[in-house]
Amino acid sequence: MSAQNEIDIVELAEAWSLLPVEDRVGGFRQLDPGDAEEFFFDLDARDQAELLMALPGAERRIWIRLLPPDDAADLVQAAAEEARPGLLNLLDETKRREVSALLAYAEDEAGGLMSSRYARLRPDMTVDEAIAYLRRQAVASIEPETIYYLYVLDGAQRLLGVLSFRDLFAAPGNRTIREIMTTDVVSAHEEMDQEAVAHLFSEHDLLAMPVVDADGVLKGIVTVDDIVDVVEEEATEDIQKLGGMAALDEPYLRTGFLSLVRKRVGWLTVLFFAQLLTATVIGRFSENIEAITALALFIPLILSSGGNSGSQASTLVIRALTIDEVRLRDWWRVARRELATGLTLGAALGLLGLGRIVVGAATGQSYDTDILRLALTLSASLVAVVLFGTLVGSMLPFALRRAGLDPASASGPLVATLSDVTGLLIYFSIASAIIF
Amino acid sequence: MSAQNEIDIVELAEAWSLLPVEDRVGGFRQLDPGDAEEFFFDLDARDQAELLMALPGAERRIWIRLLPPDDAADLVQAAAEEARPGLLNLLDETKRREVSALLAYAEDEAGGLMSSRYARLRPDMTVDEAIAYLRRQAVASIEPETIYYLYVLDGAQRLLGVLSFRDLFAAPGNRTIREIMTTDVVSAHEEMDQEAVAHLFSEHDLLAMPVVDADGVLKGIVTVDDIVDVVEEEATEDIQKLGGMAALDEPYLRTGFLSLVRKRVGWLTVLFFAQLLTATVIGRFSENIEAITALALFIPLILSSGGNSGSQASTLVIRALTIDEVRLRDWWRVARRELATGLTLGAALGLLGLGRIVVGAATGQSYDTDILRLALTLSASLVAVVLFGTLVGSMLPFALRRAGLDPASASGPLVATLSDVTGLLIYFSIASAIIF
Repeated sequence: MSAQNEIDIVELAEAWSLLPVEDRVGGFRQLDPGDAEEFFFDLDARDQAELLMALPGAERRIWIRLLPPDDAADLVQAAAEEARPGLLNLLDETKRREVSALLAYAEDEAGGLMSSRYARLRPDMTVDEAIAYLRRQAVASIEPETIYYLYVLDGAQRLLGVLSFRDLFAAPGNRTIREIMTTDVVSAHEEMDQEAVAHLFSEHDLLAMPVVDADGVLKGIVTVDDIVDVVEEEATEDIQKLGGMAALDEPYLRTGFLSLVRKRVGWLTVLFFAQLLTATVIGRFSENIEAITALALFIPLILSSGGNSGSQASTLVIRALTIDEVRLRDWWRVARRELATGLTLGAALGLLGLGRIVVGAATGQSYDTDILRLALTLSASLVAVVLFGTLVGSMLPFALRRAGLDPASASGPLVATLSDVTGLLIYFSIASAIIF
Repeated sequence: MSAQNEIDIVELAEAWSLLPVEDRVGGFRQLDPGDAEEFFFDLDARDQAELLMALPGAERRIWIRLLPPDDAADLVQAAAEEARPGLLNLLDETKRREVSALLAYAEDEAGGLMSSRYARLRPDMTVDEAIAYLRRQAVASIEPETIYYLYVLDGAQRLLGVLSFRDLFAAPGNRTIREIMTTDVVSAHEEMDQEAVAHLFSEHDLLAMPVVDADGVLKGIVTVDDIVDVVEEEATEDIQKLGGMAALDEPYLRTGFLSLVRKRVGWLTVLFFAQLLTATVIGRFSENIEAITALALFIPLILSSGGNSGSQASTLVIRALTIDEVRLRDWWRVARRELATGLTLGAALGLLGLGRIVVGAATGQSYDTDILRLALTLSASLVAVVLFGTLVGSMLPFALRRAGLDPASASGPLVATLSDVTGLLIYFSIASAIIF
């Protein structure tokens, strides 16, 4: 291959998402073999599947066989439904069985994250025997990322204990594995949700965790590098929900147009119907507006102040609940803090509102009502609406979690809408009391 | 110790955040020794520091010496400024030097995350020698979580290459380390930002990464279990910014009241001033409202529809930019998608708006203007405002990143405020064209 023909692996990765399939295949084939392998392994499962489907059968077989079973399972899952049996058939008998077993789990449970290759030991081996055994044969067939812990199993594949390489190395050669293993093992059940698995990892600072079934049989292990992806995925879902929409199932640019609209139109419609109440409230007070048009001036200002402070409060509380910084039973502590915070923030904005009217009056602006009363109405409404927004924003996530729902549904837009309707009632009530 | 006196480690952990310091010390002392160690290691650095400062000097020394250097450095950093020299003095000479070196790095750079204990090999050792060497002495002094990779250094501590335990185990005993090591090492510079380090980890699926200085000297290693925390922290910061506030430096319940207010009042004030423009716009059109009060009815509905669709779009784009699903150069692709999405969502809400007026009219509701024209105004405004909100929400993050600012500043509240001001202009312009 001449130097001109060689394609840089970094350049290809950069351009990948913009290239049509045939150019991807072309670029991939111009990589030298070592680079091609590295490049293929670094692609995500969906890109791997697309590339593979565009290659002729013989090449397809070579590449899919290079993958460890958990990655092969991800690839098969990422391929179109009808292509899956064909892909599975490219694997040898043993690996096909392993991959099929992994495919039986949902993507977001412990079982769906796990690798079926790890180092197993028998409890009655000595340390020297174990080291020799690992050197002789076991190492070649297990994943590089999973070699750190060694799992001790009985004849029925039940997990008896675990030890680290360090434990093994540090022990005298004639001790048995049973004597040096830890039996107090943190493990995940195969159907445990991936978010719960991630919590266990971060709580115990683990590198890998065994996954067991109801009988204590070891089904596989989850490694921490997959947990990094889980934490990132879960954060993405939460962020999207907080933005007032349903979480996307795939990356933004890969989500089809219809799916993108569907994920967004639902909440927009719900919020639209809720917002219709604002028209009803304003309609109830339309005589007041007819009498004093100046009241209409400050509607958006007041509502958005309530919505913004509510969005701040709900975001803070939802995130704190998600990462367990705050528990359900802390609601009263949070309520007291947010009451004080809401009053302070409301007072600050109330003063700014007062200032606005005073400056307006000083520069010759005129309103169709008494300036002092208007200023008082605006300030008092700001204090009340900001306080209300803050309390709704901070308490709604607790209420949702208490009801068994996802606190992240208390998105900024939802809190803003709830505080809009109440905010108008507060504003017009205060105006009625002060001005009329 | 009697059974009644024994405290359950889980119970203590649950109650910890609610207990005053003296009860924490009391509870901690009632744990049996093994549990106490596990409990102490599982506390975060700040809790460790608080507990330690409440213990007498002799106990304080025992506990801090149990910690590996990176955790000890975190503890010292979490303690009050004036307590730090005293804590450092509790360490033995070697560890004090290691901890001081780690303290020199900012908490959020690669250097601040790294551990200074890892397995080192010389390039001219044979495989058998290396295994014997690791069994004999190296293993005891390195962290359990860092044993997976072995780092090959020259006499000046420069990083020559790396190999995994698997590489070492799988190689014939008489080969030298130089022959089997990988020289193509992914490494981080000591001042690299922790978010960039996390990206490298997730891109290359690594368990640990060496940190080097400008001369290629190995300064330490970062392990993936710390990266899980980094990813979670960064997501928390982004989520807080998206809620329209400055990111907190500490967990919610630990943030002082004044700091909590300060982090929130800044953006609230900025948004308040921007919202003052809405009063100006409505003031400019107050004659229209005086003529037709019905126009005021739909102000919140129209503005919130624009704000909600803008919040959706900005959330999606910001998260996609953050996790590199979308790059700066993709802006045009995103703009085209969001144009189509905005039109579709706007049309959907426009139809709902039309429906609202028709149903209102059918049930005998009356407005002080022609119903057909009012319905047209409402629908057309919804389409235009939603489209505008969607475009602003999706493009502002690109503009911020292009200007070298954090795209996450384009929070839902900011986008909503921008679209409020423009939304009013759009609404009244359309009303003027259709009704007046």
